Amino acid sequence: MRAIAENINVMSKSIGEAMKNRDPEPIQGLARECTEAGADLLDVNLGPARKGGAELMDWMVRTIQEVSDLQLCLDTSNHEAMEAGIKACSRPPLINSFSAQPDKMENILPLAAKYDCEIIGLTMSTHIPKDANERLGIAYELVMAANEMGIPNSRIWIDPIVMPIGVAQDHAVPVMEVVKGLSELFEEPVQMTCGLSNVSNGALDELRSCIERTFLPMLAANGMTSAILNAKDPEMMRTVRLINALTEQSLYSVSDAELR
Amino acid sequence: MRAIAENINVMSKSIGEAMKNRDPEPIQGLARECTEAGADLLDVNLGPARKGGAELMDWMVRTIQEVSDLQLCLDTSNHEAMEAGIKACSRPPLINSFSAQPDKMENILPLAAKYDCEIIGLTMSTHIPKDANERLGIAYELVMAANEMGIPNSRIWIDPIVMPIGVAQDHAVPVMEVVKGLSELFEEPVQMTCGLSNVSNGALDELRSCIERTFLPMLAANGMTSAILNAKDPEMMRTVRLINALTEQSLYSVSDAELR
Repeated sequence: MRAIAENINVMSKSIGEAMKNRDPEPIQGLARECTEAGADLLDVNLGPARKGGAELMDWMVRTIQEVSDLQLCLDTSNHEAMEAGIKACSRPPLINSFSAQPDKMENILPLAAKYDCEIIGLTMSTHIPKDANERLGIAYELVMAANEMGIPNSRIWIDPIVMPIGVAQDHAVPVMEVVKGLSELFEEPVQMTCGLSNVSNGALDELRSCIERTFLPMLAANGMTSAILNAKDPEMMRTVRLINALTEQSLYSVSDAELR
Repeated sequence: MRAIAENINVMSKSIGEAMKNRDPEPIQGLARECTEAGADLLDVNLGPARKGGAELMDWMVRTIQEVSDLQLCLDTSNHEAMEAGIKACSRPPLINSFSAQPDKMENILPLAAKYDCEIIGLTMSTHIPKDANERLGIAYELVMAANEMGIPNSRIWIDPIVMPIGVAQDHAVPVMEVVKGLSELFEEPVQMTCGLSNVSNGALDELRSCIERTFLPMLAANGMTSAILNAKDPEMMRTVRLINALTEQSLYSVSDAELR
């Protein structure tokens, strides 16, 4: 289970402001904090970034790389911002994301191929199917499309799309089935990830972590290989370490269980 | 996921003393507390109970039944104490446990058949195999032996034997494989359970709950249907409720996530 820190996000008040003001300190502080907490990658979420997105993403990547060696996961729907970010990265990033929508296929996928990036594929087209088989069908379509561009399965991360338990409880089981199915569907395995905090979206703040920390081990037991999550939550990072120990992906040590 | 409260145990200092002194109050207080916390069954663990075990188990069952309507899970290696406890139960209890050892087969299994009890079968003989297939082989043997006595699969609870992560990390994956295997092995499904707190045995007290709350969802995702656990841990009981919501065994409500 690899942890992708969700924290560097334009939606966060302090980070959004720091982005706007090109103030490196809050962003570098957060990047350092997530790196020290044990994140494996850092998501850099600019949202739509319609105005000046390319220059902002370039600045963000350079700013973060000054303090962290972690692989970055670039997250924006602005195609120019994505390309500018990729170019600024000292190692090929993970692109977040494409889906089975024609414009995503045509715009984002070629970037991954051109710059030898890894890429997240969302199992959705114009809507998010509830049915596990329908999601698996889309995953297959995404992988074929990426393969055609020369991207091997090991560089494709499929996201089964986690939904809030409060409004879409009936999506949790299909999501687990998709993860299970993806573990078995391809001869050359794909990677997987998900926006874990979606599952607790809308819940009271003090309850979100425990909902996420219950769902993540269930996803892991079905074969999930990573999650985009709150790396500033020490209990969450401990859960990630314990999952890795319990699945023998790491040697268990007392520090796996320790609250850092 | 059904929760069997592990708490009424001779090994607990206050409960052990109350048993010795036939003092109903601490025992009834604890039984009430576990019932109110949402336990589905109460384990009544007398250990070997070599001296006066039959009279003690009879007294324990009557004492607990005065304050709780929950099904009891009788836990002792003393055959006479087990029979006395079964006779005192107002509804057939769950017998904890038999295994693939000849004396267990010959002594305990006939009691389950005679009194129409449910029974836990441990996937071990004189030793605990590490290999998942070996454990599944024993499970098959246990189920066949119980079936021969007229006990249907729905009344057999197989325990894959959880081991401490600190000293037997390499047992965690096989245990999950056994649970998965058991979900698929029998046309008429068996129930399952486990001694969940074994996984954190030897860990620091303040870390035990989080280890258990990471492993339980992983077991649940593989098909585990119950666990013997610490019902006095509100976070544990919340995890059980969240597992049931995430697997659609119950309708999600805000109180699933609430700390009671």
